Amino acid sequence: MRYLIDFSYSGENFNGYQKQPKKRTIQGEVEKVLTNINGGKKVTIHSSGRTDAKVNALHQMAHFDFDKKITPYKLLGALNSYLPDDIHINKVKEVSLDFHARYMVKSKTYLYKISTLEYNPLLRSHVYQYSKPLNIRKMKKAIKYFIGTHDFTSFASSEDKKEDKIRTIYDASIKEKSGIISITFRGKGFLKYQVRNMVGALIKVGEEKLFYKDIPKMLEEKDRRKASICAPACGLTLIKVEY
Amino acid sequence: MRYLIDFSYSGENFNGYQKQPKKRTIQGEVEKVLTNINGGKKVTIHSSGRTDAKVNALHQMAHFDFDKKITPYKLLGALNSYLPDDIHINKVKEVSLDFHARYMVKSKTYLYKISTLEYNPLLRSHVYQYSKPLNIRKMKKAIKYFIGTHDFTSFASSEDKKEDKIRTIYDASIKEKSGIISITFRGKGFLKYQVRNMVGALIKVGEEKLFYKDIPKMLEEKDRRKASICAPACGLTLIKVEY
Repeated sequence: MRYLIDFSYSGENFNGYQKQPKKRTIQGEVEKVLTNINGGKKVTIHSSGRTDAKVNALHQMAHFDFDKKITPYKLLGALNSYLPDDIHINKVKEVSLDFHARYMVKSKTYLYKISTLEYNPLLRSHVYQYSKPLNIRKMKKAIKYFIGTHDFTSFASSEDKKEDKIRTIYDASIKEKSGIISITFRGKGFLKYQVRNMVGALIKVGEEKLFYKDIPKMLEEKDRRKASICAPACGLTLIKVEY
Repeated sequence: MRYLIDFSYSGENFNGYQKQPKKRTIQGEVEKVLTNINGGKKVTIHSSGRTDAKVNALHQMAHFDFDKKITPYKLLGALNSYLPDDIHINKVKEVSLDFHARYMVKSKTYLYKISTLEYNPLLRSHVYQYSKPLNIRKMKKAIKYFIGTHDFTSFASSEDKKEDKIRTIYDASIKEKSGIISITFRGKGFLKYQVRNMVGALIKVGEEKLFYKDIPKMLEEKDRRKASICAPACGLTLIKVEY
């Protein structure tokens, strides 16, 4: 039996998503509980993609195989009763054996939140505190240049040795409400640190240290060194994966 | 010199507000940093009142005395640079030596948040998850009975041996927005667990296990055993103290 889970987590108290020996990771915690439910027989989960350390998710997706048949409803209850309070399963669904949570992704949506208000310790796990004024109007102009198919070399991680850095962004927008800026990107897939590097550049535009027309220039230059700071992981949340 | 601080904290990772030997408490952390800034000479803070373990604050107030004169601006910077990320100083003000952060309180406002949506691990430190449906209309009728001066024995902590359980609530209201219920109480002062016990009763009204007219009856009975469950601490935040 193959199952697909839709799950959320607060990245704050984990050493990242990916399983590592002796470290508390999201994958590690979910697999530990699933292996227990599976009577001790090792279960491996395959997510839509790992998230960076400290990044959050409201609707991450992963599939796994189970020997015994168990109703999705029962599996949901068992998972949530054993998981720690910073991971939660929203839904469990039975899928066919040819379904793959990573290879079949049609789009992913990320939300980056910035607070320009007084620092609020209650929001520290999922909002980046940025107390200087930001010119939202210019940031809105800048973000449009990211939409479409581009070579995102300038916004990739410098450690990323993959050849192909061409990615497609379907939609990108910025909203501001009561001092909280929400930046959303929906794309076919993203390079490592791409969203945080794009947000870093948008913050520079908001600070008026970059001009909004610098964004297409940076894309053209295809040089990571030309790009901007990487915005902190805590502001980022994976909010949707579509198949 | 006497200073007044306006500060926020997330109660989640503390053993309560009040200083205790070898335990991480809010008072303990603030005093440790202040004592350091004061060149090692012990500083004691006097807050508007302690908050229960796991309760949060956005605008708690406390005063303390310092031997050396330091500008409020410099003190604010020094405090925030040494404090952990779950405590934050919003403001520092110099006050006269006869000011007292506890005895001079005119009113306190508490906010209790309940989520009726899917559990969200990002909000777990300051929102109580309650996944069953609640009848908000009936809760709104019920809350009005708390406004005014009453004997709150039925809503006090059973451990509370104080004689005088008469308190005054100036205002109380319930709002619901996108599945998040916000319950606010503004009063002259509150008994231990009073807000959480009132919220517990309101939840019972919302569940239709209590009738809204049961609230005035419970107040009249002056018997803690007649009252309702105590709502979890994590949903509660002290949002304002007025002098």
